[in-house]
Amino acid sequence: LKAIHQKVRQTVKRHFLCPPGSRVLVAISGGSDSVALTFLLLDLAAYDEFSVVSLAHLNHQLRQSADRDEAFCRDLASRVGLPFVVERYDVNSYATSHGLSLEDAARRVRYDFLGRAAAETGATRVAVGHTEDDQAETFLLKLMRGAGLTGLGGIYPQRGLVIRPLLDISRQDLRVYLTARAEKWMEDETNDDVENPRNRVRHVIIPELDRTSGGATRPAIARAAALVREDGQWLDELGRRRFEALVTATGDGLEIDVSNLAVEPAPLARRVLLEAMRRTANGREVGLDHVEAVLAILGADRGGIDVPGSRVELRRGKLVLIRQKGPSK
Amino acid sequence: LKAIHQKVRQTVKRHFLCPPGSRVLVAISGGSDSVALTFLLLDLAAYDEFSVVSLAHLNHQLRQSADRDEAFCRDLASRVGLPFVVERYDVNSYATSHGLSLEDAARRVRYDFLGRAAAETGATRVAVGHTEDDQAETFLLKLMRGAGLTGLGGIYPQRGLVIRPLLDISRQDLRVYLTARAEKWMEDETNDDVENPRNRVRHVIIPELDRTSGGATRPAIARAAALVREDGQWLDELGRRRFEALVTATGDGLEIDVSNLAVEPAPLARRVLLEAMRRTANGREVGLDHVEAVLAILGADRGGIDVPGSRVELRRGKLVLIRQKGPSK
Repeated sequence: LKAIHQKVRQTVKRHFLCPPGSRVLVAISGGSDSVALTFLLLDLAAYDEFSVVSLAHLNHQLRQSADRDEAFCRDLASRVGLPFVVERYDVNSYATSHGLSLEDAARRVRYDFLGRAAAETGATRVAVGHTEDDQAETFLLKLMRGAGLTGLGGIYPQRGLVIRPLLDISRQDLRVYLTARAEKWMEDETNDDVENPRNRVRHVIIPELDRTSGGATRPAIARAAALVREDGQWLDELGRRRFEALVTATGDGLEIDVSNLAVEPAPLARRVLLEAMRRTANGREVGLDHVEAVLAILGADRGGIDVPGSRVELRRGKLVLIRQKGPSK
Repeated sequence: LKAIHQKVRQTVKRHFLCPPGSRVLVAISGGSDSVALTFLLLDLAAYDEFSVVSLAHLNHQLRQSADRDEAFCRDLASRVGLPFVVERYDVNSYATSHGLSLEDAARRVRYDFLGRAAAETGATRVAVGHTEDDQAETFLLKLMRGAGLTGLGGIYPQRGLVIRPLLDISRQDLRVYLTARAEKWMEDETNDDVENPRNRVRHVIIPELDRTSGGATRPAIARAAALVREDGQWLDELGRRRFEALVTATGDGLEIDVSNLAVEPAPLARRVLLEAMRRTANGREVGLDHVEAVLAILGADRGGIDVPGSRVELRRGKLVLIRQKGPSK
């Protein structure tokens, strides 16, 4: 038990998740991860300078067990003496009306709700229960979908108000912890549906990786994800700074001096081009293919290409992005 | 056919694999990758400013088919009119006598031979046939073994004399190319043994990833590997520069001013610590665990720890690495 506290505390400290005076709302689904998160943060709050101020539960109304889960969470909140914020939301209709996948819709509705619940209970942080397991699974999912320039690095320990103190802990360890405390949790039966890609990664691919390597691959992948994320985040920041230094606005777009871009190391040159295309993309998606295409123009020292929202051309030693009015190819 | 030439040429150009005047030796096993490499480089050499000067084949004497493969390669060299360098080596005994795995022994013997063959035929580059498939497989193998701080980025397009012009091409495309040219190749029956981790990745894991994502995951993984490698390589270079700036030698080790290290971004701080520990490790392996342990000392602002070859301690605002004489813990 002591080891798991130390590990969570280390994650919290390393990423400054709960600065002194933080007031934390815990997002709780009733599953083992979020129930363990609740108890672990309450334990840590007893000797660190932050406090847990509320529990928030979103009833997705997606499953038969939704009301059972809500009742379980309400009961838990009352046992630990915390205000309980709950909302019911028909995620299915939201997904249909907004043209989103069920997963995307659920995510959007959930974080929207958590923001409101935080405001309502005066919370300055929203803790969610993502674990090392989620980290490894997300990395593999992004890897096989071709994350390209961004996003291979998996789940962030913090994004805005949202913090993830369990990102270095395995689900298995959380269950051992809860069992040792004689605490219960609700099982989510949809986790067993192997038609869902995340469940397939969890139940088929990771066990096969374990078999091939003869060891536990989940922690290795989660750790790699964290390192790639940390490296990428800092390079993104450097890339933004180089963008500010190298790219100038024109009447109808942007331009970059080719000789300046040529001396940048590849990781920054790529990011400068990506950022430039994003700024002229008018919300359309820009990807690695576009960066590669522009690099090919630079390599050949001639040519032009249509990218989302703009046309890119070489003109007298400058790479020029011209915003297009109409729909782009 | 034109598309594959363009693609190889792009890889060659982007990574400056064959600068003008390069004299290229092609390493040939008789398999589809290296046979295609031979013809593709001969085609490119016809209109680019480099030349193919020789073919080199190592007979590993590992398989029944070894002599058949050698004869096939010798015949190919004579057909295309190139000098043929061949050597027979009992890789099995080398592995045993040097305490290496068969894979490591074969790699060492092979690159050793290729270096000699290059010198013998006046080659300035050694081209080897690694493909996008190898790139994706290597990335997954490293990922599951916990590549840690280095090496997740897969295979390099160039290392010393060795170049890999096919790194962006799939094996499937190479076979289509050879078939279209009515060229044959030798199949390597050991590629089917699924007890071998690489073959398991190829025949079990990647198809399962394809099934889960509903698409071809190999190019996505190879591309991610290339990006991670490029990012990591440049960060490693920056890390070495920060190491030179921040770390000073003492009588019995190294020291780093903690306040200087604290202002470095995490990706560089990690690399500075790794490099410092490597320099005092006396050849022993330093890994991410050690970096994490030292970061924990810095976070707690107290403590000391034994790492391979040295003891690390905080002393009056400095992180001190003291070389240990005896065997380290």
